[in-house]
Amino acid sequence: MLIVQKYGGSSVGSTERIRRVAERIVAAHDEGHDVVVVVSAMGDTTDQLLGLAREMAPVPSRRELDMLLSAGERISNALTAMAVQSLGVPACSFSGPQAGVITSSVHGRARIIGVEPTQVRQALDRGMVVLVAGFQGVSRETGEDTTLGRGGSDTTAIALAAALKADVCEIYTDVDGVHTADPHLVPQARPLSRLDYDTMLELAASGAKVLAPRSVEYARRHGVTVRVRASDGGCPGTVVSACPDEPERGACAEHAACPERAPFAGVAHDLSTAEVTVTAVPARPGAVSTVFRVVADAGAEIDTVVQPPAHEAGEEAGDIRFVLPKSDVPAVLAALCEHRAEIGHEKVTCRDDIGKVSLVGSGVRTSTGAIAAFCETLARADVRFESITASETRISVLCPAGRLPDALRALHRSFGLGADAEPAKRVVPSGRAAHAACAGAEPARAGVCR
Amino acid sequence: MLIVQKYGGSSVGSTERIRRVAERIVAAHDEGHDVVVVVSAMGDTTDQLLGLAREMAPVPSRRELDMLLSAGERISNALTAMAVQSLGVPACSFSGPQAGVITSSVHGRARIIGVEPTQVRQALDRGMVVLVAGFQGVSRETGEDTTLGRGGSDTTAIALAAALKADVCEIYTDVDGVHTADPHLVPQARPLSRLDYDTMLELAASGAKVLAPRSVEYARRHGVTVRVRASDGGCPGTVVSACPDEPERGACAEHAACPERAPFAGVAHDLSTAEVTVTAVPARPGAVSTVFRVVADAGAEIDTVVQPPAHEAGEEAGDIRFVLPKSDVPAVLAALCEHRAEIGHEKVTCRDDIGKVSLVGSGVRTSTGAIAAFCETLARADVRFESITASETRISVLCPAGRLPDALRALHRSFGLGADAEPAKRVVPSGRAAHAACAGAEPARAGVCR
Repeated sequence: MLIVQKYGGSSVGSTERIRRVAERIVAAHDEGHDVVVVVSAMGDTTDQLLGLAREMAPVPSRRELDMLLSAGERISNALTAMAVQSLGVPACSFSGPQAGVITSSVHGRARIIGVEPTQVRQALDRGMVVLVAGFQGVSRETGEDTTLGRGGSDTTAIALAAALKADVCEIYTDVDGVHTADPHLVPQARPLSRLDYDTMLELAASGAKVLAPRSVEYARRHGVTVRVRASDGGCPGTVVSACPDEPERGACAEHAACPERAPFAGVAHDLSTAEVTVTAVPARPGAVSTVFRVVADAGAEIDTVVQPPAHEAGEEAGDIRFVLPKSDVPAVLAALCEHRAEIGHEKVTCRDDIGKVSLVGSGVRTSTGAIAAFCETLARADVRFESITASETRISVLCPAGRLPDALRALHRSFGLGADAEPAKRVVPSGRAAHAACAGAEPARAGVCR
Repeated sequence: MLIVQKYGGSSVGSTERIRRVAERIVAAHDEGHDVVVVVSAMGDTTDQLLGLAREMAPVPSRRELDMLLSAGERISNALTAMAVQSLGVPACSFSGPQAGVITSSVHGRARIIGVEPTQVRQALDRGMVVLVAGFQGVSRETGEDTTLGRGGSDTTAIALAAALKADVCEIYTDVDGVHTADPHLVPQARPLSRLDYDTMLELAASGAKVLAPRSVEYARRHGVTVRVRASDGGCPGTVVSACPDEPERGACAEHAACPERAPFAGVAHDLSTAEVTVTAVPARPGAVSTVFRVVADAGAEIDTVVQPPAHEAGEEAGDIRFVLPKSDVPAVLAALCEHRAEIGHEKVTCRDDIGKVSLVGSGVRTSTGAIAAFCETLARADVRFESITASETRISVLCPAGRLPDALRALHRSFGLGADAEPAKRVVPSGRAAHAACAGAEPARAGVCR
């Protein structure tokens, strides 16, 4: 087999941890596999480098940030290569550009266009373990080094797996797979043994940190089988692939069988957003659209508009509230301040003590009353919420950040996601869709695969 | 003018210092010069990375060390570029490979073959300050990233200056030029305003740390004018060039005039060596040559053989003593231990409390009695010494490390190198050579230019 493995920053946060990663790599090599490894920067290296950059310039150039940050992965990959060599296995590390990772030319958030892994293949052919610095590449257009933005190492690993036609891309992390909820907040959360790309994408987009949405998209587009597993455990983790009906293989006893064929895969949360309120925006035409134009020009992506501008008859001004990533807040506040004369609003306030809670699964579409049950569950748990949004496979609300754990636990229990399953009374799978997905699966275990 | 500037690790040891370096760069740019800058890794970054590498493997692979260590200069150069940008001047940083620094393929101690600075020129043409990561390049033969070994950033700067036909290569350091002795040990030491390549090379080879010997060789080969100066002072520093007779320009008042036209340029010292003694090496043919073969195979370069193997008639065995860099000692001790049966020696001992003291200048050749005066000076200062070696322009001895400062001070005074000049009685410039070198120079100041 040809295996691509990816280890995150915490897995290589110290020389001792790098040694353990090296042992795992060597174990795979000794089993006769070809092994390509992508390692993130050690621990908080990236944050430290960002801190230095901000000392140099309030808004450092994105090109220079890329030159700076890409050093982090060079360091961790070279150290890992040394650790593998010290165990007697030949190894060599490549930077992203050396490994042929071709990206778009946007510094700081480049997208991988493709991988031309000539050097990687040559090294594999010589029997070596190959390490590739994640999170970085080179633009063919400009010849410049680029970085992919946060979570980019997952995409590097998946893109390498696609280019090398690897059998599997293993993403090692500090939890043993994708869970029905964040185990730190919901003790009853269980690892899922299998997920299809679409469900994984919804979970990732809703805040599940285990895989970056962009990397899941890449895997879906190229049909790469991804296995998310713990770097220090024997569990098989979660397989993300196009084929949820394929029979289970190697599921470990602790893993519940095929919960992904249940109508709901899990609950996810996101604490990385903030809510901005622009008060007393004049009712005259153009003022509201100017607000959203100014926000867009500041480079921010609005996640949700909480309370659409409701300029009722006779009102001269109204508030506009929207949700966006916390990291975009300083730029947005500055931009709105700068354009205050043009917009004519009174003031801008911001709160970052909000959280987004989502329920993900095909049951949103196939079950009757899922949204009602969702709201009732939160009401019973005494969680105030607002701004309900729903897609075919997801229901999301905003709630106070402090109430988020209770909201997650209540939903997790109510929608039968854990061992403490207590199905919400009014969720009735509508017809065959949910059941059909279960056909061909191994016998369902108690309370899990409905 | 096109100026290449090089800043060492201590000049960029903190973000505050990087900011000061940026101000100096911008000052040169504002004077209308094209500026290319080579920055070493920050402070002790290289040592920290080496420490991590040794935790991973006792003898890390040289290729991976190059991948690892080259990250240090990427970081410092990107941060410096940001600092220059924050002062309103466009800047961009390149890695050694991006800047077209082509080297031999020996990892860890590659030599620069040439520089093809296409990208650097393009950026200069666009009015930018260009930063280039020192100490690194790429092998055309293997396509691999390489490092040049310690002091490599000086060579990077000089090689860039040669390729770009720069008017001057300024090496910024923590002292205001090349001195007649190390000012930390000899308070009377004075900066030299001008030196020719050969004298600079002898001083560097004798332990003067201000320029690496390899970089001086490169400057001599390509005729690059080098100016060594302090990063935080207004002094013009020391100009190293092929033409010591060129009239002075811009010498600052604190600098003595043309001391390099004096018969002796300065005293240098070297504390980086150790003495190894192999005791009771059998007198049989081959044993002695095996010792030196084993040492050479261990990658060590012997500096001096202190006491040549004197197998006098009837003796069955004798000691061999030699001097080599301290960093080579562990490998040499291990190798000699491994080959003990073959050589048949009794034991190997090592002492690292020795120092080498050198007097450098054309006076060694042109003055009568220079060696005698040298020895008398040390004897008067009560410094025990041994192993005298002399070339046309240098006299060196070994002495106890603890006596080295006294030896330097006595020689400095005796050979008229400082303000406290007290010429050694028997040193008589022989004929015209030394004086001739003074022709065309500005009038000599008291006691300096003889």
